[in-house]
Amino acid sequence: LEIDKLKTVNRRSYLLDGSRKENTAEHSWHVAVAALLLTPRENGIDLLHVLKMLLLHDIVEIDAGDTFLYDETANAAKAEREQQAADRLFKILPPGQAAEFRALWDEFEERETPEARFARGLDRFMPLLHNYFTAGKTWREHGVTADKVMQQNSIIRDASGELWEYAQTLINNAVEKGFLQNNNDAR
Amino acid sequence: LEIDKLKTVNRRSYLLDGSRKENTAEHSWHVAVAALLLTPRENGIDLLHVLKMLLLHDIVEIDAGDTFLYDETANAAKAEREQQAADRLFKILPPGQAAEFRALWDEFEERETPEARFARGLDRFMPLLHNYFTAGKTWREHGVTADKVMQQNSIIRDASGELWEYAQTLINNAVEKGFLQNNNDAR
Repeated sequence: LEIDKLKTVNRRSYLLDGSRKENTAEHSWHVAVAALLLTPRENGIDLLHVLKMLLLHDIVEIDAGDTFLYDETANAAKAEREQQAADRLFKILPPGQAAEFRALWDEFEERETPEARFARGLDRFMPLLHNYFTAGKTWREHGVTADKVMQQNSIIRDASGELWEYAQTLINNAVEKGFLQNNNDAR
Repeated sequence: LEIDKLKTVNRRSYLLDGSRKENTAEHSWHVAVAALLLTPRENGIDLLHVLKMLLLHDIVEIDAGDTFLYDETANAAKAEREQQAADRLFKILPPGQAAEFRALWDEFEERETPEARFARGLDRFMPLLHNYFTAGKTWREHGVTADKVMQQNSIIRDASGELWEYAQTLINNAVEKGFLQNNNDAR
């Protein structure tokens, strides 16, 4: 019952048809299916573990709200807000599950295990996809520049070299097509 | 890119705050997290398999739309509509993944393996929860009666005896509270 609230938390990204912003619950589904499709099978990454983290990774936004990747002020206080949210939310569960789910969320945040690195990279990749295929709708609304996009998305490299290469292609094409402003002094 | 469309397919169920109908993408996330919480660990059910099926189970609605459980006319043609949708959608993938995802969807539909029975039962349970906790909003809008709810939800029994017991309690309480019409001649 509690997590139903995540369906009312809106992100900055738009649906690909541009009709409205997407919410965090449907994003969580989208990135989980992306993991089904894209999790590498050859290097021992545990898909179940990746899926668990992705299904739970944004539940803290029920209390903490969605924090826009390129909003530096909001991001400064984000960790504390989300820790408090995690404290409240996971404790709704019976103790065993509370500890298990909290550990999955912590692991995702810490980005140290191969599964967490992959999940975090894929989660970062999704809004890039939405931005590119809506002609940079969110980037343009917030005046985001290419250097910031390149910098914030470089953690995709830890998820997969192939995905990062594709991400860079999208970013470069976005600049060429005028979806994304170049920032000459920062590149 | 293609599955983003599932975020625009609306179901009959309302969010628990009653503010709007839920869409199929966010429902798919909700039921996947429910599976994380409720999949029995003691009897050999493969959680990864359950999650895969639940993440993919409604993708056919991109073409076939959501079919209301209590709409008998729409349900008569549902299987064919969804088969056609599955034929188109899964073939977007590379052949290996197309076959794997199609097999998962078929397995869910056939409801024979323990994983499929659990996943289907849980999927059936979710709208019951939404209806009960919105004072029967969808049931009342469509004049659904208790005997139909009992009948259509009895497949929850195959998922879990405990879940089915809870489902029956909700249905009986819903009748008592006037959320759900009793149908004297059918019980």
